[in-house]
Amino acid sequence: MLASHFHLNTSKEAPADAEVISHQLMMRAGMIRKHAGGIYTYMPLALKVLRKIENIIRTEMNNAGALEILMPVVQPAELWMQTGRWDAYGAELLRIKDRHGRDFVLQPTSEEVVTEIVANEIHSWRQLPLNLYHIQTKFRDERRPRFGLMRGREFTMKDAYSFDRDEAGALKSYDIMFNAYKKIFTNLGLKFRAVNADTGSIGGSRSHEFQVIADTGEDLIVYNPDSEYAANIELAEAPCLIAERALPSKALELVPTPEANKCELVAELLNIPLQQTVKSVVYSVQDEEGKKSIYLLLVRGDHEVNEVKIGKLAAFKHGFELASEEEIIEHFGSKPGYLGPVNTVKPIHIIADKTVGNMSDFVCGGNQENTHWVGVNWGRDLPEPMIEDIRNVVAGDPAVDEPGTLAIEHGIEVGHVFFLGDKYSEKLKATYLNEQGKPEVIQMGCYGIGVSRIMAAAIEQNNDDKGIIWPLPIAPFEVVICPIGWGKSEEVRQQATSIYNYLKDQGIDVILDDRDARPGVMFSEWELIGVPIRVTVGEKGLKEGIIEVQARRDKESQKLSPSEVNSYLFNLYQQLKSTV
Amino acid sequence: MLASHFHLNTSKEAPADAEVISHQLMMRAGMIRKHAGGIYTYMPLALKVLRKIENIIRTEMNNAGALEILMPVVQPAELWMQTGRWDAYGAELLRIKDRHGRDFVLQPTSEEVVTEIVANEIHSWRQLPLNLYHIQTKFRDERRPRFGLMRGREFTMKDAYSFDRDEAGALKSYDIMFNAYKKIFTNLGLKFRAVNADTGSIGGSRSHEFQVIADTGEDLIVYNPDSEYAANIELAEAPCLIAERALPSKALELVPTPEANKCELVAELLNIPLQQTVKSVVYSVQDEEGKKSIYLLLVRGDHEVNEVKIGKLAAFKHGFELASEEEIIEHFGSKPGYLGPVNTVKPIHIIADKTVGNMSDFVCGGNQENTHWVGVNWGRDLPEPMIEDIRNVVAGDPAVDEPGTLAIEHGIEVGHVFFLGDKYSEKLKATYLNEQGKPEVIQMGCYGIGVSRIMAAAIEQNNDDKGIIWPLPIAPFEVVICPIGWGKSEEVRQQATSIYNYLKDQGIDVILDDRDARPGVMFSEWELIGVPIRVTVGEKGLKEGIIEVQARRDKESQKLSPSEVNSYLFNLYQQLKSTV
Repeated sequence: MLASHFHLNTSKEAPADAEVISHQLMMRAGMIRKHAGGIYTYMPLALKVLRKIENIIRTEMNNAGALEILMPVVQPAELWMQTGRWDAYGAELLRIKDRHGRDFVLQPTSEEVVTEIVANEIHSWRQLPLNLYHIQTKFRDERRPRFGLMRGREFTMKDAYSFDRDEAGALKSYDIMFNAYKKIFTNLGLKFRAVNADTGSIGGSRSHEFQVIADTGEDLIVYNPDSEYAANIELAEAPCLIAERALPSKALELVPTPEANKCELVAELLNIPLQQTVKSVVYSVQDEEGKKSIYLLLVRGDHEVNEVKIGKLAAFKHGFELASEEEIIEHFGSKPGYLGPVNTVKPIHIIADKTVGNMSDFVCGGNQENTHWVGVNWGRDLPEPMIEDIRNVVAGDPAVDEPGTLAIEHGIEVGHVFFLGDKYSEKLKATYLNEQGKPEVIQMGCYGIGVSRIMAAAIEQNNDDKGIIWPLPIAPFEVVICPIGWGKSEEVRQQATSIYNYLKDQGIDVILDDRDARPGVMFSEWELIGVPIRVTVGEKGLKEGIIEVQARRDKESQKLSPSEVNSYLFNLYQQLKSTV
Repeated sequence: MLASHFHLNTSKEAPADAEVISHQLMMRAGMIRKHAGGIYTYMPLALKVLRKIENIIRTEMNNAGALEILMPVVQPAELWMQTGRWDAYGAELLRIKDRHGRDFVLQPTSEEVVTEIVANEIHSWRQLPLNLYHIQTKFRDERRPRFGLMRGREFTMKDAYSFDRDEAGALKSYDIMFNAYKKIFTNLGLKFRAVNADTGSIGGSRSHEFQVIADTGEDLIVYNPDSEYAANIELAEAPCLIAERALPSKALELVPTPEANKCELVAELLNIPLQQTVKSVVYSVQDEEGKKSIYLLLVRGDHEVNEVKIGKLAAFKHGFELASEEEIIEHFGSKPGYLGPVNTVKPIHIIADKTVGNMSDFVCGGNQENTHWVGVNWGRDLPEPMIEDIRNVVAGDPAVDEPGTLAIEHGIEVGHVFFLGDKYSEKLKATYLNEQGKPEVIQMGCYGIGVSRIMAAAIEQNNDDKGIIWPLPIAPFEVVICPIGWGKSEEVRQQATSIYNYLKDQGIDVILDDRDARPGVMFSEWELIGVPIRVTVGEKGLKEGIIEVQARRDKESQKLSPSEVNSYLFNLYQQLKSTV
């Protein structure tokens, strides 16, 4: 491609509504253009990236035996009513009436339609297993679309659905998809983790998120660098950090702690480790009749309560919220900041985190303003508490049930694999006849990848102050040739064109910038766009026998002679292609 | 691909709502599945065809210098209001409100969005020309969707838009697209015609339809086999068939013609050629104040009035309809069937077709029931009429302004190129600064291809009583290998697999039917699906040293020895690839 035949339109400034770096850089690089909140056009640069992502996904889906189909964007509401999602989905589901007043939805996902297809197509056990996928436009009417392609309303998604005779088959299909996803994200050239995300609430027993690692990611991932273990922080099991509770060595004592209404301040004031303090968090919890009781949750001073974990406690399953100041004063006799399990005004339920359960001689609030208890001990000063895993993992925690120390990083969810069981197949009557001629319900799995979101996530992971740094497999162009003096030097034109033709012949996606722009402008533009390899052919350099090759990620360029530049480029290309 | 890894599901019967052959065959071949009127899923076979069509289009669009983008399916209504199409488009435009009550449309086409993009992207004459296209899901809420993919509601379309500095540039872009379209339809392996469709009503002076030739097509195409001329029948100029009017040779006479209320019956009764009769068609025509007058249109007995042509007459431009029986009796004193220009009860306007204008001694209605005038002559029995081209061309008419005889065939419109001028760019303020820094309005063209419709049109053109006959470039599979006795004969398996591997290595899209089905069932299935080349490897044949190759379009199969089969297949493949 010659740049003069392409459409480039970069800018120094991003629009004010671009809050995250991927959104800013995609706008500045002229990749996307906005038409309404969360609705964009993919300009030629972005579409090239999107298609490369799609093709990498398609290849591995096909390799894994999945069959590509194309389901409609506009889907009949009846199906969504049959599964109950017409009501359950809420305002994110964009609803339409056609000219005859019939209800339709703009698909946010395709479980209903694919299950209807399979209910009609599949009759016999001989036709199973089956895995159908499509790469299609989706729509979710987000209340507040933002972050560009990270949370758009119209987006491209690959969704696959597996159909099996039984749970064992479905789990096998799940594993095949899990492995295909690992290949896909590896081939995309992205750093990622497959994160255990089994919530138990989808009716199945397996679920993994595929997270692209990026400092700006909204999700926190706990992982063990020494094993395959990775989990969303909401779900990662937190270990007890104290193997055995020590015997009490101090007396219980109420000490003044003026204005020390946080564990950090108390530890500083009393000159003790933060790890000696206990944090009190109070919840108002409903039972099944809606009656409220007060629960005091205790975690170590350097830990945080995890609401996903407490939501799974039997006592919390009918609803809970942080207690109001009124409720707190009524039960503890003190404002927040000085609360603790010792001497409450009214009886309360106490749940201690596993680590707190083994603490001794600890410090907690005095239930009077500006005071704390020190030397608190279970069994002596307080009854033994109920003990549960109620805290977030922190970096440095030992791994559970395996060697290693847990680390935490930020991620962006770009893929999700679920075991669905019969959630949809039961309601939409997708059954097959087994060898005995008896109808059985098909077992399903579903497997999504946010295709357009990957583009944004790749940028969140790979950028610097100059712009985007595309991984080679999904770069809009793999190599850019920047001739300096294109308009006036025949030698520059010849040399640049010769390299261009060589790279094209190798099947490399190369663009030659024949616009005769000033070098500074040209370099900034291609650094912003993020092409992985830049070749500079200048009149001055050629006089010295030098052509410069600059890998976008490297600080230093390589100075090469015209005779060695092609083979150097080819090797660099191969190397970048295989490196994640 | 192995058939056991693919999803095949054919049936002997088509559903009752499948009226046209392409719809019937696509349903029977298991290519599409219906979810609602005009809304289908493309199953694996159909999606393979769709993608091949898309890629052929994409290649030639790119070769022609167009740049691919992706515009959204959901588009803001504001833009459609600015161009007036929000009101003008009617019920076919599917309208949506998002959760905040903002109006959107589901795109039936993208002039508005692409013009908005260009209005923002283009500032200088240096950035022009530009041609942007996308291949995207469209929606038109047809009142009565039917004929499967021929008239669906959700469909895939390629739409391109060219942007130029002036009309000369825009017409150059038009010609580039026109030529690209010819390559595209040639490469698709379809018989087609580029048909002049210049209606003058779109604000431009150029428009062509690309029609796939098929007996079942709804459009009639007039063409000259000896030249490039082709036009929609609504627009094809009809020649005057009589070079010079002969002098009267018969006396005017009113003759009884009992129950002969059609030209054919009159000619039969009077034993004269149909070409000697004149047909009367009466219209009630409004002037600009809404006042009605009666027009009698005269065409030769074997010709038909063309309402598109009369709609362009100055007198007809404020509206017209066929006159009512009351109006006819009031003006002619007779019921329809016996009307003519001689002796009307009230004065009327008379327009004669060019051929009628040169007729002499002709026969027309007597304006009394069961009578006709014979020996009618212009100038003698009637004043000279107003003469216009008001009839349809018929096969055998001489070509206008060139040698040759016109022929007529049926076609299906699958592409359309338009010169748009400033219709959208003016309203959406898409301007650029010329060399003098003065803003000028961009001149546009638009170029559509019905991608999914091509699939149906290809079937309408290529089928027989066994099923579909795919042109090789868009066949779901290019070759099918049918082993007979796959399950029991090692030799069959080896030979079939060897051919399969050879074809795969040649980059040929081949499927090996390893399902061990009965030969009759297997053959019928692949004939229905329409794979262009079938290879049969059977135990019995191998004993005789024979492998059979059957081209789907041929009556006879070729019997080949195992040693010659590969090279024969390769040659047949190359031949089918290059033949339209």
